[in-house]
Amino acid sequence: MRVLELARKRRSIRKYSAKPIPLENILYAIETALQAPSGANRQPWRFIIVNDPDIKMEIRKTAESWERKLHESDSTPEWFRKWLRERGITWRKEFLTTAPYLIVVIADKRAPYSRESVWLAVGYLLLALEEKGLASLTYTPTNPRAIASILGVPEYYTLETIIPVGLPGEDKVKEPRMRLEEAVYFNRWGSRRD
Amino acid sequence: MRVLELARKRRSIRKYSAKPIPLENILYAIETALQAPSGANRQPWRFIIVNDPDIKMEIRKTAESWERKLHESDSTPEWFRKWLRERGITWRKEFLTTAPYLIVVIADKRAPYSRESVWLAVGYLLLALEEKGLASLTYTPTNPRAIASILGVPEYYTLETIIPVGLPGEDKVKEPRMRLEEAVYFNRWGSRRD
Repeated sequence: MRVLELARKRRSIRKYSAKPIPLENILYAIETALQAPSGANRQPWRFIIVNDPDIKMEIRKTAESWERKLHESDSTPEWFRKWLRERGITWRKEFLTTAPYLIVVIADKRAPYSRESVWLAVGYLLLALEEKGLASLTYTPTNPRAIASILGVPEYYTLETIIPVGLPGEDKVKEPRMRLEEAVYFNRWGSRRD
Repeated sequence: MRVLELARKRRSIRKYSAKPIPLENILYAIETALQAPSGANRQPWRFIIVNDPDIKMEIRKTAESWERKLHESDSTPEWFRKWLRERGITWRKEFLTTAPYLIVVIADKRAPYSRESVWLAVGYLLLALEEKGLASLTYTPTNPRAIASILGVPEYYTLETIIPVGLPGEDKVKEPRMRLEEAVYFNRWGSRRD
């Protein structure tokens, strides 16, 4: 399948089937991510594959306690509350325990452009998961350090995202995307034509 | 071709042939990037396609003046100097004028996780370019704002990377990558086995 078709097909999935999936496919996607370029080729990434039910539950409890604060906070902007409401997204993060695997993505702060490099690699990872017919979500916890601590991640690494992976437990249409003409300028900001 | 094979094949190219390439392929890659997920689906990206020789030269001159300062600065760490030296990378950035196209990638600072989202989309972009047989590099200028100003990018947007695109003007082996066993832990930091 062409890369564009894979990219078009992929949607962010928040409900997962508990049906097991082969670890091999998770490893395939990480192997793909490892091929990404990075600042000075420092490859500032580590991936923790979590499938232990107790650890998943601990991650979920911690994530939810912080999410709850966020969802109840007055400082959360109204447009964002509305966006969450329309999608039925609450502070509950069931996917952290129902998805058979979580891929926890870690960046080495000491490397140049570590955040940028790691997220580029996440792009590779998502397309490889889609190719294997696996659903995913790039979940960014409100307090990444609290979850990093559960996993024993050293201080000079940051937890960038937790990606639940499994078979979809919901049917979803892709959220609309910008058209090319809206996102592209030629030679100068605001210039629509070549 | 499988995503893993595309990812394996791609290498960062710093020397470009001046041979023209179809704009259509650049648009294909950006169309792919537009499919990426983003924080609250804000799609905080814009892409400026630059092929005007005068603008490319202005970008190059500005980029090089800042690169020169960086390369001559005492505060540049020795490991990084060595890395640059071994690869013959100097402050000169010929690729900014020789590559037929530059894709300037812009992030909207006002959106949540804008940097993360944009770099994830860059991952999509690079694989789509590779699929079209096009060489690329994620060049991060030393002073992104100086270049953003040339292009008229508003203050609340950041220039994240400039991606030269074209046919390769050099033959390169891929820089070595970590093995899966080095990059992956199971259930806890440092734990190598499932």
